[in-house]
Amino acid sequence: MSVKVGLIGCGVMGADHAKLLLGDTPGARLAGVYDADRGRAEAIASATKGARVFGSASQLIDDPAIEAVIIASPDATHGEFAIGCIRAGKPTLCEKPLAATLDECRAVMAAEIDGGRRLVQVGFMRRFDPGYRLMKNAAREEKAGRPLFLHCVHRNAVAPDYITSDLVLANSAVHEFDIARFLLGEEIAIVSVFSARASRRAETRCPQFIVMETASSVIVTVEAYLDAQYGYDVRAELVCESGAISLSPNRPVALRSAGWDGFDVERDWRARFADAYRIQLKEWAGAIAGGSVVGASAWDGYAASAIAAAALEALARGAPSAVDLGAKPAFYA
Amino acid sequence: MSVKVGLIGCGVMGADHAKLLLGDTPGARLAGVYDADRGRAEAIASATKGARVFGSASQLIDDPAIEAVIIASPDATHGEFAIGCIRAGKPTLCEKPLAATLDECRAVMAAEIDGGRRLVQVGFMRRFDPGYRLMKNAAREEKAGRPLFLHCVHRNAVAPDYITSDLVLANSAVHEFDIARFLLGEEIAIVSVFSARASRRAETRCPQFIVMETASSVIVTVEAYLDAQYGYDVRAELVCESGAISLSPNRPVALRSAGWDGFDVERDWRARFADAYRIQLKEWAGAIAGGSVVGASAWDGYAASAIAAAALEALARGAPSAVDLGAKPAFYA
Amino acid sequence: MSVKVGLIGCGVMGADHAKLLLGDTPGARLAGVYDADRGRAEAIASATKGARVFGSASQLIDDPAIEAVIIASPDATHGEFAIGCIRAGKPTLCEKPLAATLDECRAVMAAEIDGGRRLVQVGFMRRFDPGYRLMKNAAREEKAGRPLFLHCVHRNAVAPDYITSDLVLANSAVHEFDIARFLLGEEIAIVSVFSARASRRAETRCPQFIVMETASSVIVTVEAYLDAQYGYDVRAELVCESGAISLSPNRPVALRSAGWDGFDVERDWRARFADAYRIQLKEWAGAIAGGSVVGASAWDGYAASAIAAAALEALARGAPSAVDLGAKPAFYA
Amino acid sequence: MSVKVGLIGCGVMGADHAKLLLGDTPGARLAGVYDADRGRAEAIASATKGARVFGSASQLIDDPAIEAVIIASPDATHGEFAIGCIRAGKPTLCEKPLAATLDECRAVMAAEIDGGRRLVQVGFMRRFDPGYRLMKNAAREEKAGRPLFLHCVHRNAVAPDYITSDLVLANSAVHEFDIARFLLGEEIAIVSVFSARASRRAETRCPQFIVMETASSVIVTVEAYLDAQYGYDVRAELVCESGAISLSPNRPVALRSAGWDGFDVERDWRARFADAYRIQLKEWAGAIAGGSVVGASAWDGYAASAIAAAALEALARGAPSAVDLGAKPAFYA
Repeated sequence: MSVKVGLIGCGVMGADHAKLLLGDTPGARLAGVYDADRGRAEAIASATKGARVFGSASQLIDDPAIEAVIIASPDATHGEFAIGCIRAGKPTLCEKPLAATLDECRAVMAAEIDGGRRLVQVGFMRRFDPGYRLMKNAAREEKAGRPLFLHCVHRNAVAPDYITSDLVLANSAVHEFDIARFLLGEEIAIVSVFSARASRRAETRCPQFIVMETASSVIVTVEAYLDAQYGYDVRAELVCESGAISLSPNRPVALRSAGWDGFDVERDWRARFADAYRIQLKEWAGAIAGGSVVGASAWDGYAASAIAAAALEALARGAPSAVDLGAKPAFYA
Repeated sequence: MSVKVGLIGCGVMGADHAKLLLGDTPGARLAGVYDADRGRAEAIASATKGARVFGSASQLIDDPAIEAVIIASPDATHGEFAIGCIRAGKPTLCEKPLAATLDECRAVMAAEIDGGRRLVQVGFMRRFDPGYRLMKNAAREEKAGRPLFLHCVHRNAVAPDYITSDLVLANSAVHEFDIARFLLGEEIAIVSVFSARASRRAETRCPQFIVMETASSVIVTVEAYLDAQYGYDVRAELVCESGAISLSPNRPVALRSAGWDGFDVERDWRARFADAYRIQLKEWAGAIAGGSVVGASAWDGYAASAIAAAALEALARGAPSAVDLGAKPAFYA
Repeated sequence: MSVKVGLIGCGVMGADHAKLLLGDTPGARLAGVYDADRGRAEAIASATKGARVFGSASQLIDDPAIEAVIIASPDATHGEFAIGCIRAGKPTLCEKPLAATLDECRAVMAAEIDGGRRLVQVGFMRRFDPGYRLMKNAAREEKAGRPLFLHCVHRNAVAPDYITSDLVLANSAVHEFDIARFLLGEEIAIVSVFSARASRRAETRCPQFIVMETASSVIVTVEAYLDAQYGYDVRAELVCESGAISLSPNRPVALRSAGWDGFDVERDWRARFADAYRIQLKEWAGAIAGGSVVGASAWDGYAASAIAAAALEALARGAPSAVDLGAKPAFYA
Repeated sequence: MSVKVGLIGCGVMGADHAKLLLGDTPGARLAGVYDADRGRAEAIASATKGARVFGSASQLIDDPAIEAVIIASPDATHGEFAIGCIRAGKPTLCEKPLAATLDECRAVMAAEIDGGRRLVQVGFMRRFDPGYRLMKNAAREEKAGRPLFLHCVHRNAVAPDYITSDLVLANSAVHEFDIARFLLGEEIAIVSVFSARASRRAETRCPQFIVMETASSVIVTVEAYLDAQYGYDVRAELVCESGAISLSPNRPVALRSAGWDGFDVERDWRARFADAYRIQLKEWAGAIAGGSVVGASAWDGYAASAIAAAALEALARGAPSAVDLGAKPAFYA
């Protein structure tokens, strides 16, 4: 009864999805795999007993035995494959970004609207993290009144050398852009960017500080520092009229040792968001079975990319930049 | 390919297992259910699409379409059903206690030894909790040296009226007895019990404090207070020669509100150990597929019950009581 | 042997200083008091046994029996009294602000330079808080590398009605401006201000978010929200190249009660910074005895006010504002 | 107006008291010092400008210029000096223990009763620690109902080699005995002791676990481990009918560094209880001026020693030991 899933892209993310499908997601099973490197696809197929290795992404997408698709291939291919899935009428979970350019994002939305059915979910997995969900509930129910500030911190232990100041915004901070929209339930209007001095460890990129204003004047702040060395550290505090609610990472044990009293810090996002990834797949499969889509829509993917584009412009110009999304199609209401 | 599981007992625990099988355990699926109250069995069967409702536990156990069994029926039935599963050659996950008396526990072990194959896992789910696992690793690897003390706290928000001082030991503290053996990897030798004064809310039972000594003179302490009102609170601290490692519950968000800065406390063990229950089933199913048994063995179930019996004796006599397990069968080495 | 101190201003702050002099500061004793409301002065004098009540601030300042002066009178009087103390050659601890205008701040500095001797300490008591001091040491010693970000939060439980958006910056955020300079040891170059929407409880003023850049491109952020209701909450995190160090308030006990696990939050700054006020007076008295001045200098007081002025300008103009301090006199090096 | 204090014993504790008198205690000043090592006494006297060095403890006690006495000399001398102070009619702060034997403790009480005036305070400084005070208030006001358990942990980083298992109880756990009586406001009735295996670092002494029962059946537990290496760690949790209140040490900053998120642990009791020592002296001086005595009385000192004696007996006998204090003199009511 479980959904037959095809996986495009068998790198780190794709392999993690395959593992979750195998061990934790009764509602779906891996039926097909494709990767430009056939060996990687075969490795995953053999581990999952029974998944077919396809010769191309389009063959996988179009094969009648594949009911839904996970797109975990390089960013530049996302838009094309997403549109292929839409045309084939197949639900797809597309890793972020939705597409490489805003125009291509719009093309994906146009195709989806044209098809008349919501099929695309963008893999902003944090929306399935228990902490963010509790924060969203608190915001929606105004448990501590209306939100006034949302403070986000995004620190990686070590970023690859090819990451530039631009990519700090486009690759990493984009997760914060999506989660801000998710938590606050409204659009970002203006983006300002402030560059801190570079760390001596990574002199080619600057840590960035982003200040955003929503339509209703909530202030959203994002610190993005990808060379923090001490560990992976994502934080969020939602400051409301009469109280504040913060993310608290899952740290199963505390240690007292060698003059210290505290906790081990996660090394990367896979450890930090393991639950979010698992729950994302589970709920995605369940939604497919129920004929709906959960999580971030194509519009959400587009909006996050549009904020990132505005942030890049703000960084380049040294001045605040407006986010112009255009009118939201009724299809995504 | 997933293991076809029969479920005996469709109360709270049984329903939770059914839900986990359905939503989180690709390696197993619910194929049969039995409950003395047929309506409860039918409710679960219909929710899981396709599970057959059996007219008796023994029919379920003996049916060739059932490959493995979960026993979640009343305590008094555990031993009989476990022996039934052993005779049918079927792996079983039996909720604690393994059996209602020590003699019956020994009968289960005798049956299993007689069958020549390990089939019984006792549902001490905490052994699958990520925090306890990290503690066990720390102990085994002597990361902070050898253990000296293990301090355990077991508090329930509200206990049913029928719980007596005896049942504080037999029903609740028994989880601590098992986890102490799990963490330390050795047997308990002596048990002392101290009764605190009763809470005014529950004057029929006393909170208990238990001090145990292991063979190698590690001191294990357990506070068991079942009327703590403020919430469900299970703690453990393993004090080793040069450091201490403590459980830290998963609290996804922190709140600052109305003069407070802190966290919501779980209301019961199902919320606190949700991950442990999920992982337990996943690994149980995986182990069945691999022909082995993980988790607490019948010997472990017997040992926990034997410690509880010694504790009851110590409570009754007002003096320390030795735990006499007899020789451990090589079968359980 | 203790320094004979005259106190100008016997309101809440003045009374607190008097109490600290009496009970915790062997190096100083209250010898004279003045308040526009003579009754308040007499109340303090009688409680401290032996302090003389003066008929005017200038009489107190000029009296030979007074060796040093604490200025805790209304803000508008600070500059005049500080200059009076300088002319009388008496060390003074002047509550912030140093003076009501930047010109008056400059006049105080000119008088002090003219006198050739450092006499003025501005009462930025946080510089004596153990937490901030540890942060400063960590920054100076580059324990976790050079600073990149400093994030500050300033929340009051309830602000008086007369506080406007302007006063959020000038009265409250000014503490953050000083502490940023203290921690980082360099000047602020540019200030940007973002106004969040007002709380429904206090619609006449907006919570403010301030982003500052130092000469060496450290980014300093300040959230200032004076109607947070849940309590008084001052936070600071210094993010350095390879680690982060945060303030952790002193909360002597943790409570588990009614579904909560956490801490009481302080209601106001007097509770939060009780140690800082005590240590400030002790070290001030000790420094006088040793012929020197510790804590914030007149230059520091001027700089904090200048940043506040730039922030007000940024708020009014809706654009970043440069902080132009002019050249720092060698006298304050 | 401040009380003229004589200090007997100029070791670590005595020197700390002298420093506090000089810098933090306006209500008292050091007027005389004595130490068997005259050089140590002279060093302190010269640092405090004006304290006279005495040739013997009794000269100091009897000198009319000395109004009150701090006894910080070796334990064996406490009783004799305390009686000397009583006979001289001078308030005394006597470091614990009150006297070397229970008989001598009784002799001190007899002398004090004979004199008809409370003069002796035993230096159980924890009674002045803000955390313990909040706990005591919570207990007295039954904020979370009546106490059921008090759990205490006493860990030192490194103990001197001469500390034996006996001294673990008599020297270290005695602080817990006093604080338990302080927090609960009632006497200890029975003491049981369990020895854990020794650490490989300190094989000559065993960590001890003590279980005590009060008259009203509150269970008090104490873990005493003096070789914990990772730091000095004193904890207390008061478990009441509907909530629990725990000590939370003052840790002014949190660090995230090198894979860790946490706090530095104190190295010893002087850092941990610095505030308690300071407040103890301040309130002692204030009470003398007011003609009263605060803190632990001679009866409290006697009771703590009597519990320690019972614990030693329990350790030796391997069986619970009753604490027989005899009737409490009305003088100490």
